[in-house]
Amino acid sequence: MKMRFFWLLSTIIIVISAIAAQAAGPLPAWNDTMSKRAIIAFVEKVTIPGSPDYVPPAERIAVFDNDGTLWSEQPLYFQFYFAIDRVKELSANHPEWKTQHPFQAVLEGDMKALATSGKKGLVELIMATHAGMTTDEFAGIVSDWVQTARHPALNRPYTSLVFQPMLELLDYLRAKFFKTYIVSGGGIEFMRPWTEAVYGIPPEQVVGSSIVTKFEMRDGKPVLVREPKVHFIDDKEGKPVGINQHIGRRPILAFGNSDGDLQMLQWTMAGQGTRLALLVHHTDGKREWAYDRESHIGRLDKALDEARAKGWTVVDMKNDWKQIYPGK
Amino acid sequence: MKMRFFWLLSTIIIVISAIAAQAAGPLPAWNDTMSKRAIIAFVEKVTIPGSPDYVPPAERIAVFDNDGTLWSEQPLYFQFYFAIDRVKELSANHPEWKTQHPFQAVLEGDMKALATSGKKGLVELIMATHAGMTTDEFAGIVSDWVQTARHPALNRPYTSLVFQPMLELLDYLRAKFFKTYIVSGGGIEFMRPWTEAVYGIPPEQVVGSSIVTKFEMRDGKPVLVREPKVHFIDDKEGKPVGINQHIGRRPILAFGNSDGDLQMLQWTMAGQGTRLALLVHHTDGKREWAYDRESHIGRLDKALDEARAKGWTVVDMKNDWKQIYPGK
Repeated sequence: MKMRFFWLLSTIIIVISAIAAQAAGPLPAWNDTMSKRAIIAFVEKVTIPGSPDYVPPAERIAVFDNDGTLWSEQPLYFQFYFAIDRVKELSANHPEWKTQHPFQAVLEGDMKALATSGKKGLVELIMATHAGMTTDEFAGIVSDWVQTARHPALNRPYTSLVFQPMLELLDYLRAKFFKTYIVSGGGIEFMRPWTEAVYGIPPEQVVGSSIVTKFEMRDGKPVLVREPKVHFIDDKEGKPVGINQHIGRRPILAFGNSDGDLQMLQWTMAGQGTRLALLVHHTDGKREWAYDRESHIGRLDKALDEARAKGWTVVDMKNDWKQIYPGK
Repeated sequence: MKMRFFWLLSTIIIVISAIAAQAAGPLPAWNDTMSKRAIIAFVEKVTIPGSPDYVPPAERIAVFDNDGTLWSEQPLYFQFYFAIDRVKELSANHPEWKTQHPFQAVLEGDMKALATSGKKGLVELIMATHAGMTTDEFAGIVSDWVQTARHPALNRPYTSLVFQPMLELLDYLRAKFFKTYIVSGGGIEFMRPWTEAVYGIPPEQVVGSSIVTKFEMRDGKPVLVREPKVHFIDDKEGKPVGINQHIGRRPILAFGNSDGDLQMLQWTMAGQGTRLALLVHHTDGKREWAYDRESHIGRLDKALDEARAKGWTVVDMKNDWKQIYPGK
């Protein structure tokens, strides 16, 4: 009896939600331009039973880059701010960092000096701040940071700098029984502690870069220890590899914003049947940032050419998005 | 209108299925012994709302070893038979294999000579048969093999050698909104082409060992090429690492059958709240095989001691299972 009541209640809720969603129309933060129309046309084609392009729910895999696609990435990737904040916090136990690059540059806020330390310096920073603890400890550190840290230029929590139109798109796709994944160059363990609350994407649907972890017994308790060694870089050619490794199915929709996403879009579009490739083009210097071919962060150059040549959907942030961030 | 009708129909089907499942009672191929009772008691504790041990659906992660847990593994792992069959098929293009170990041993059916080639020989066999093609090509090869190959001793398709009680357990857990995963030492790409049809486990819920794959453009078409290089071994200490990498949540139920599963069970049980660890003990030399501490395949020694010391559920195949394979 209880069981049947539970099911009845669930159904009423589902039916009401579906009707409410239909009444408002999907994607309210999107202007009624080509981009929005392309998305809705695609979703309808693959979800309406009997359509020649119909795709069964199990194969409705949609993959999203994170930095610059689901949230902002300027003037530095937000995970880099996390590393900077960690260096400051850990510096009390590392007096040697005061005179040791790249840590000195971070502590003195000298971004020019930091830039000269290049990729080697970046890896050193990442390892000093992301390794040497258990996976549980690191998840706790990230959760604390995400709840308290603020973007230095905008003085807002980082999780408020997610794109409202993309939150709506994720919801819309899930309502149509798509499975939504993040496939990001960012750290998989840096994202997982907050992606479910912020994007509705659970940890098992997050693909990202990772360092080596090692199983160990500590005081009779098993732990996974994060080691200062790269395991996988989920960027460029790595993205299709990461998708195959984690998902094992080819997506039918892929959304990125930079050359780092090009191979993911190529891989998605090379499958059979109707597919959709999209790029966010950051064109809004007033409400967000405007950058593409010359940017050091999120460079969009080759992928923009290929998108135009192949008719992929290029979302023009300035013209296609009514609203950028939630609540404003 | 159509939408509402669809929802109504879905609900009726769900309610009828739920009532039907309840009427028959879960796990009919299990005898009414301690093991079955432990499983049902656990599942009820974590799924009944208001229970002090209640676990929300999103966190109901259950992980299963494959070889020896979901299907048989004697006298050789079935993936090894796949490699043997592949060597025979490919030998026409490799005349040099006639006099080259370990291939010669395989072609002559000389299992003793094969055994002496040890781990090095095994890796050579795997790489010669599992690498050098695209992921799509490999999936096709595996699908064809699974549909036609037969177990040499039993003369039955390998997929008929899955355990009926485990199929029922997977269904039972999913009906209770568990997410069921395979976490196997076997090859991830060897399992994915058939786990959905055979176990109801989709590709994205399969974790396994893997070789390196590389993104390449071939005639303007992106492919992932399988390279003869180990990427990850999902066995022993690797299993918790694989679980963390793919799922990013700690399971609440883990089911294995050998020492290769010990760390997965330890990792599962080290979380907070009620959890369940289980082992299949192969005790049925008549209906399946009987082996444990001395076996070269699926050795169960340390894990059996730890299970007994810690009160984990050891499923005695002979006494706990009414039926071994589907349909007989």
